[in-house]
Amino acid sequence: MNFAHSDNATNLIARLQAFMQEHVIPAEKTYAAQLRGGADWTQWQQPPIMKELKAKAKAAGLWNLFLPEDGARLSNVDYAPLAEITGRSMIAPEVFNCNAPDTGNMEVLVKYGSDEQKQHWLNPLMAGEIRSAFCMTEPGVASSDATNMQATAMLEGDEVVLNGRKWWSSGIGHPNCKVLIFMGLSDTNADKHQQHSMILVPLDTPGVKIERMLPVFHTLDEPYGHGEVSFTNVRLPLSSIIGGLGRGFEIAQGRLGPGRIHHCMRAIGAAEFALELLCERAMSRVAFGKALAKLGGNADIIANARMAIEQARLLTLKAAWMMDTVGVKGAMSEISQIKVIAPNVATQVIDAAMQIHGGAGLSDDFPLTALYAYARVLRIADGPDEVHRGLITKLELKQQAKRLSIST
Amino acid sequence: MNFAHSDNATNLIARLQAFMQEHVIPAEKTYAAQLRGGADWTQWQQPPIMKELKAKAKAAGLWNLFLPEDGARLSNVDYAPLAEITGRSMIAPEVFNCNAPDTGNMEVLVKYGSDEQKQHWLNPLMAGEIRSAFCMTEPGVASSDATNMQATAMLEGDEVVLNGRKWWSSGIGHPNCKVLIFMGLSDTNADKHQQHSMILVPLDTPGVKIERMLPVFHTLDEPYGHGEVSFTNVRLPLSSIIGGLGRGFEIAQGRLGPGRIHHCMRAIGAAEFALELLCERAMSRVAFGKALAKLGGNADIIANARMAIEQARLLTLKAAWMMDTVGVKGAMSEISQIKVIAPNVATQVIDAAMQIHGGAGLSDDFPLTALYAYARVLRIADGPDEVHRGLITKLELKQQAKRLSIST
Amino acid sequence: MNFAHSDNATNLIARLQAFMQEHVIPAEKTYAAQLRGGADWTQWQQPPIMKELKAKAKAAGLWNLFLPEDGARLSNVDYAPLAEITGRSMIAPEVFNCNAPDTGNMEVLVKYGSDEQKQHWLNPLMAGEIRSAFCMTEPGVASSDATNMQATAMLEGDEVVLNGRKWWSSGIGHPNCKVLIFMGLSDTNADKHQQHSMILVPLDTPGVKIERMLPVFHTLDEPYGHGEVSFTNVRLPLSSIIGGLGRGFEIAQGRLGPGRIHHCMRAIGAAEFALELLCERAMSRVAFGKALAKLGGNADIIANARMAIEQARLLTLKAAWMMDTVGVKGAMSEISQIKVIAPNVATQVIDAAMQIHGGAGLSDDFPLTALYAYARVLRIADGPDEVHRGLITKLELKQQAKRLSIST
Amino acid sequence: MNFAHSDNATNLIARLQAFMQEHVIPAEKTYAAQLRGGADWTQWQQPPIMKELKAKAKAAGLWNLFLPEDGARLSNVDYAPLAEITGRSMIAPEVFNCNAPDTGNMEVLVKYGSDEQKQHWLNPLMAGEIRSAFCMTEPGVASSDATNMQATAMLEGDEVVLNGRKWWSSGIGHPNCKVLIFMGLSDTNADKHQQHSMILVPLDTPGVKIERMLPVFHTLDEPYGHGEVSFTNVRLPLSSIIGGLGRGFEIAQGRLGPGRIHHCMRAIGAAEFALELLCERAMSRVAFGKALAKLGGNADIIANARMAIEQARLLTLKAAWMMDTVGVKGAMSEISQIKVIAPNVATQVIDAAMQIHGGAGLSDDFPLTALYAYARVLRIADGPDEVHRGLITKLELKQQAKRLSIST
Repeated sequence: MNFAHSDNATNLIARLQAFMQEHVIPAEKTYAAQLRGGADWTQWQQPPIMKELKAKAKAAGLWNLFLPEDGARLSNVDYAPLAEITGRSMIAPEVFNCNAPDTGNMEVLVKYGSDEQKQHWLNPLMAGEIRSAFCMTEPGVASSDATNMQATAMLEGDEVVLNGRKWWSSGIGHPNCKVLIFMGLSDTNADKHQQHSMILVPLDTPGVKIERMLPVFHTLDEPYGHGEVSFTNVRLPLSSIIGGLGRGFEIAQGRLGPGRIHHCMRAIGAAEFALELLCERAMSRVAFGKALAKLGGNADIIANARMAIEQARLLTLKAAWMMDTVGVKGAMSEISQIKVIAPNVATQVIDAAMQIHGGAGLSDDFPLTALYAYARVLRIADGPDEVHRGLITKLELKQQAKRLSIST
Repeated sequence: MNFAHSDNATNLIARLQAFMQEHVIPAEKTYAAQLRGGADWTQWQQPPIMKELKAKAKAAGLWNLFLPEDGARLSNVDYAPLAEITGRSMIAPEVFNCNAPDTGNMEVLVKYGSDEQKQHWLNPLMAGEIRSAFCMTEPGVASSDATNMQATAMLEGDEVVLNGRKWWSSGIGHPNCKVLIFMGLSDTNADKHQQHSMILVPLDTPGVKIERMLPVFHTLDEPYGHGEVSFTNVRLPLSSIIGGLGRGFEIAQGRLGPGRIHHCMRAIGAAEFALELLCERAMSRVAFGKALAKLGGNADIIANARMAIEQARLLTLKAAWMMDTVGVKGAMSEISQIKVIAPNVATQVIDAAMQIHGGAGLSDDFPLTALYAYARVLRIADGPDEVHRGLITKLELKQQAKRLSIST
Repeated sequence: MNFAHSDNATNLIARLQAFMQEHVIPAEKTYAAQLRGGADWTQWQQPPIMKELKAKAKAAGLWNLFLPEDGARLSNVDYAPLAEITGRSMIAPEVFNCNAPDTGNMEVLVKYGSDEQKQHWLNPLMAGEIRSAFCMTEPGVASSDATNMQATAMLEGDEVVLNGRKWWSSGIGHPNCKVLIFMGLSDTNADKHQQHSMILVPLDTPGVKIERMLPVFHTLDEPYGHGEVSFTNVRLPLSSIIGGLGRGFEIAQGRLGPGRIHHCMRAIGAAEFALELLCERAMSRVAFGKALAKLGGNADIIANARMAIEQARLLTLKAAWMMDTVGVKGAMSEISQIKVIAPNVATQVIDAAMQIHGGAGLSDDFPLTALYAYARVLRIADGPDEVHRGLITKLELKQQAKRLSIST
Repeated sequence: MNFAHSDNATNLIARLQAFMQEHVIPAEKTYAAQLRGGADWTQWQQPPIMKELKAKAKAAGLWNLFLPEDGARLSNVDYAPLAEITGRSMIAPEVFNCNAPDTGNMEVLVKYGSDEQKQHWLNPLMAGEIRSAFCMTEPGVASSDATNMQATAMLEGDEVVLNGRKWWSSGIGHPNCKVLIFMGLSDTNADKHQQHSMILVPLDTPGVKIERMLPVFHTLDEPYGHGEVSFTNVRLPLSSIIGGLGRGFEIAQGRLGPGRIHHCMRAIGAAEFALELLCERAMSRVAFGKALAKLGGNADIIANARMAIEQARLLTLKAAWMMDTVGVKGAMSEISQIKVIAPNVATQVIDAAMQIHGGAGLSDDFPLTALYAYARVLRIADGPDEVHRGLITKLELKQQAKRLSIST
């Protein structure tokens, strides 16, 4: 196992940290103020400062780091610390064009997209000119079991016709969101893992309707939003199908590996940031004649947070290293492990930080509730804890049975 | 220990439950819709249905149960199950005129108020015609240590002059909020527990300014609100002082006992409600061919929730019983114990319920995030967990030292 | 719910506590020394002091409290505090003739025994002249599922013939152990819960062989012992069958209710005692210039232990109260709840006490490891945690389904 | 961070694993049987098979791996997986001459020993001909605070005179134990960290008396033993002082770094072994018609154990890597972190394995209670959890204060 950074990564880490300190962190207040906006404004417009930040990031070469234009992709181990750094600010991922679900969608198009699809959608996505959404989860069924999916993408002559209802389509409210990837059943008679297809859907296609925006802990995450979207006889040419009919599952599997590492490293960055805030507060506030850091179990909370973060980071690096060396399939257990650990550690540390801030920690005076919502969502999104634990156990028992030469 | 209900309580439980089912629960959607309101409306107005509900509750004799007009106060043991029932709905406490901070404020006035104060403020509060706020916590210091308080209530001639900044003054945004109780230093030379006084302050007194409303997990809890309030040379007649100068601490202590039991029983009601939702979802949703209730660790989550709720309820009843039999002072450890346990159990059970609901659990389709925010706030309000744990240990060691005949 | 003690119980509590302080606690060292014994002695003999203690307890009227001779049985709520008191000493239950498995066996004989069985076995058991064992668990199968049982008790003419292997037959090594109750399959064609029978087996019956004594955490619990016992064509007259063929399950169910409350209350007594030791050590030892009680998270450990013990006790009292008022069947969930909670709380509190004692806590200088072993065994004996959690969930879902008028 | 094994380590791992499978594991039963021994034997003799195993290990070049004779010491990262492998058997460390406290004592002598000390004691220790003990902890004070130490090592003319009482001197009962290292106060007027000295004491020096052997969870760990030892006017020549007067603290600090990594990796090996046993039992035993692995929360227990072990191992490797690259001082926080995490993870996983084995898990039919005792002791030995958490927090706050340019 080797988590050492390449020279390239070391260089990028330094530059990214500097950029964050110089440009992103100081811009957060402006962004928030612009978002609250004026009379002629809605929260679903993009704060103008984002455009400026994106231009600066592009100029600084801190752009599409998750997937550089020249194809000299950073390894997952190299990208991990960069993702962690952006986890300290809810607006950072977009600044560097490294935000979900665009990253996953771009990866899909790079790997499975036709030339036409790449030209039409991948290029503007990589340029940061448009944004995209991903429509997989459905409101009517337990989507933790992907085979529950009910939406359809049926061939009719030279068209594919989409029907169904999706939700938690994150980012779909953004004014720049122009396209979405839809996953649906295209052949219920095929093998279990060849029944689904993925389709590129321009947002303005007739039959696509954003029914409402879903709040997360009372916030709509404007201007990104989490949409509930209905698809009613949405007709698209066959060239909209990604990678061919029946490849939906295969694409979904590959899509999620790197995305989970990105999310987990951002969650760890969020946890690290929360611990900084926690310590700062614990050292600066006084009660009963002592700094809070010296009172009761607070010292243990700090030690426990440090140990939990260290371990979560190392585990995520291991998963990244395995993806780099043996691929997504070989790293399946480790990817599930971090998907459980990182969001849980993050929610716990952030919660502890909220607690030590008292009421202020639950307000908007600190970024803690926003970080908490991000981390809490992650315990459900991209597979809930329960499904990942189940997978870890399944793989563990398989391994143990092999050792014992018995069948599971 | 005897937690048996009096006949009166048994009767009230049945009637309150029926009223909740018949009137309150069905009104929640209307209330929410009215709150979202129309063009000429703000979220700081009271949804009209609340007035109707209050009238019905009054007519049904389910009014001021925490403190009946005739003075035949229910015991804490008898009131506890009633508070639990109202914990299932965020709007219920107001319907029955049993909402914080009015309940605590009314108790203070009943016990310490002058005739004039009672006539002016207690009567309309008990009639549900006005509402009130309580201004104790301050933004600039760790308010978990009450001796940190910086706001002042100084005698100047025949006036008392208030200065300082308070926050988390809950309910102050309500259109009916007409008065607040302010706590401040009146004599820094007095004994440690005789330096503070409590003052009745009409909300429209010059110098009182609501600076902003504080969000909790992104919601402002309209139309109640949690205010940050500045007091600048607020001048009031000496008749505004409650119970006499220097009695602030004494009043605060007594005020918090019953209030904590109310809060804890409501939190337990919230947890019980969350467990119902959890079980309903777990039985009705299917993944991997089984109801969620049969999958992986979900069964354990249900068992653990049941055990945690049972224990928290019993502990709260014990605290109530001790308050009834040996008074607040004798029940200090138990009150602190429930103040730690009930909100922690509630947040855990509600969080588990959110998890099993998937994304829906984090949205507004279910009341879980609202219940969570309520329970999470309780881990900080009225003394954070840490302070209560500290007190429990102090009393425990005192007890043990006494047994061992040593000094702590 | 009413946990108030009857006058009788109040009186017994005081007398039992006094007897413990005056006679039992001071005798523990002598008992241990006698057990280590001399040249002509084995650890499987009874320390002489036990006989003296039993005589004194009998004379003091503190005998068979779990089941008084006159049939005026104490309620479970009344017996609970007495069991808690005896939980502070590993030798106390035998002193008062209230030790498992004799208590359960006596209850069985009182309820299901024939006159002959009563005269032969119940009378000397109640006199404390003999002891008994209970042979149910088997080494070859998961005994948490009683239907896995493989031992047989087959009718052959006018005899019942026992075959099979049992283990964890506690107390079977005691020199006074003269009889055991054996549970085995008597009719595999009968209904699932009518296939088993219980048989009274004199220990010296041909074919009964104690194969070995099983250690628990390296101790054999001499002179009681936990035996692995083989039964090979053990022939007994039909009069040895308890309550008739096929009633084994029914008897087992009834047997376990009170026994679990006894065990849980003793575990709580053990936890309470461990907390006393913990506090004593925490107040008397100094590190880094402070009493351990003031260092780091130790204060929180004390508070958490106090809250856990209080809750476990209240829950056990509730289970006892329900058994008294609605019977074992109606109290099934509560009995399972305490069977999970009490041993877990006890192991946690005792473990915390060991930790604060440093190495001494793991040695025999303190009773902590013995208490720990007792509590740890309880997480497995009489149904492991997992089975009880499963039952709690099953009953909870049944209840919730009824509320929702759906089927589970 | 780079955890890759050197070619040397890779080779050693394979050979060590093969040796364990071929020689050590199969010898465990013989060892246990010889230890129980015969008529003319005591448990404080060494089972003969140990001598054979040691000879084989030496011949196989698997000897003193923690510190090769040629001085080409393996890095901590390279030694870590070897230590983990030996953690699977309680007898393995001695087989490879890699057992505590000899390893630490040898390291001390290599680094601080005089030529005479090396010839007299280091050489036979490295040859495995003798064993040693380490006498630091004292019964009368909280030894977690080393400044509490009361034993003395005072200069008197050309002798150093030792007085005091030590305990938990592990290995002192072994028939080959010939020497111990004693730590005591030599100058109470010196600087806080220069008051103590370390002295080499032949076990047969007049005035050294093993008062008793201390049990751990009822076992004396024969033939090693944990001794309570009194020192009464023990007179030794000045050449017995290690490294010079007043260097006790310095030596103790350096001694503990590698030893903690050894212990932690062994604990992780024990946890990994326990998880294997857990899975094997969970797959092979059936209850309620299913393998235990498929029942209730058991699957989650397996997933949680896997995640905890992975994280603990990675954290330990990080600490090892830091010791290799920045030294003990720079790795202080990480060493304390693993000292908390590894034993806690091990106790939890082993406890879970015991639980799934039912009664068998608490007996000697499985090695679980022995592994548990080892891991549980580690939560206290070499600094209890509490002290390490305190240190982690102290270093964390220092780091954070530096970042914020404030003082702690």
